[in-house]
Amino acid sequence: MKNCVIASTSTLYGSTPLTYLKETLLELYNDVDEILFIPYARPGGISHDEYTHKISEIFKKLNKKITGIHKYDNPIDALTQAKGLYTGGGNTFLLVDQLYRYDLIEVLKNKILSGTPYLGTSAGSNITGLTMQTTNDMPIIYPPNFKTLGILPFNINAHYLDPDPNSTHKGETRETRIKEFHKLNPQPVVGLREGSWLRVKNNEIILGGNLSARIFEQNTSPYEVAAESSLTTLN
Amino acid sequence: MKNCVIASTSTLYGSTPLTYLKETLLELYNDVDEILFIPYARPGGISHDEYTHKISEIFKKLNKKITGIHKYDNPIDALTQAKGLYTGGGNTFLLVDQLYRYDLIEVLKNKILSGTPYLGTSAGSNITGLTMQTTNDMPIIYPPNFKTLGILPFNINAHYLDPDPNSTHKGETRETRIKEFHKLNPQPVVGLREGSWLRVKNNEIILGGNLSARIFEQNTSPYEVAAESSLTTLN
Repeated sequence: MKNCVIASTSTLYGSTPLTYLKETLLELYNDVDEILFIPYARPGGISHDEYTHKISEIFKKLNKKITGIHKYDNPIDALTQAKGLYTGGGNTFLLVDQLYRYDLIEVLKNKILSGTPYLGTSAGSNITGLTMQTTNDMPIIYPPNFKTLGILPFNINAHYLDPDPNSTHKGETRETRIKEFHKLNPQPVVGLREGSWLRVKNNEIILGGNLSARIFEQNTSPYEVAAESSLTTLN
Repeated sequence: MKNCVIASTSTLYGSTPLTYLKETLLELYNDVDEILFIPYARPGGISHDEYTHKISEIFKKLNKKITGIHKYDNPIDALTQAKGLYTGGGNTFLLVDQLYRYDLIEVLKNKILSGTPYLGTSAGSNITGLTMQTTNDMPIIYPPNFKTLGILPFNINAHYLDPDPNSTHKGETRETRIKEFHKLNPQPVVGLREGSWLRVKNNEIILGGNLSARIFEQNTSPYEVAAESSLTTLN
């Protein structure tokens, strides 16, 4: 049993956070009034309290109560008892480091596998893949491991960006980076553009939003899958 | 004793690799005919042989012979005996992993500290900082450590990119990422734009090229330093 929304980004350009996902989230959290928020990724370095407060204000409009996992003396207990979950974006290295540090990886995985509604955005989506090795983030902390939850049978590249044909910059494109990843690692990578999400229900994985996603498989040219496609058999 | 050129990129847009650095390299390698090349970063996933061949063709024009460290049964001996060094760009995680795997970190550090002419570009420059934690690369492999050579008393951000004021992309800017780094780490970060390099002679560090560099210090607003400035006291 799985019930997840795994989104490229929390926020679309020119909009407020999570607005574009409103209907999707009302369905995801239909039976849940209270959601445990995991703020460990600290976008821009903001504090757990600041981050949780921002998210709490947004979820008030959906009539959902947010509590931050950092407020509990025992985060394992808090997670075990949660009825709904949201892991926000920020720095994936920091998020994964904290999940290992507090011994939460297995608990979180089992909660999601037992059907607890889960929303991930950006870093919170990266961790649902097999490893965090296709993150775009800076390695600001050394986590004990790059392995993540493996809710999906592939990896995610959130905020996927197409190469800019007019660019004069010589740093690697996203596509080049993922190609380098595939020289060493076999699993497929789903490049999720901002505005796209994966809707996971039990073993079914459907691409949500209006955009296509870019799929990278080892030893294969990258290709596009249209919105509403199934990614259930990608592995 | 140090004698290094630490460049943001090997290649400028519309030009061939290392052309913009030609005069600088002729000075750096003035007393050296043969240079040991470290191809471990494998840009775009190309092989060590392919990468070394490409670099070898470029250095022929400077009348310098290139040998790849991967060709030696004992890379520690090869490094110990080298008269000149060049570490090329590619993936910094892979480069650092290989340097640890072959037990080369201390040997390389001591060679540079004893005055062996050293060129780094991109990933090869990142490793001259205190840690590799301000790389832009993807974590395609899990290295044993993020600590690097500490030839410089700060970190490098190669291929530094200014925020694009017209961007609609919601992924983090380079500046936001470095800000997140400084929430957890104290050392300054030098944002080296493509076309810039650091010329290190003994304990003096001078910004080469025509562009300013962007300096990030913990708890301070980022600021610019002009081309030809000294960064000797930044730490």
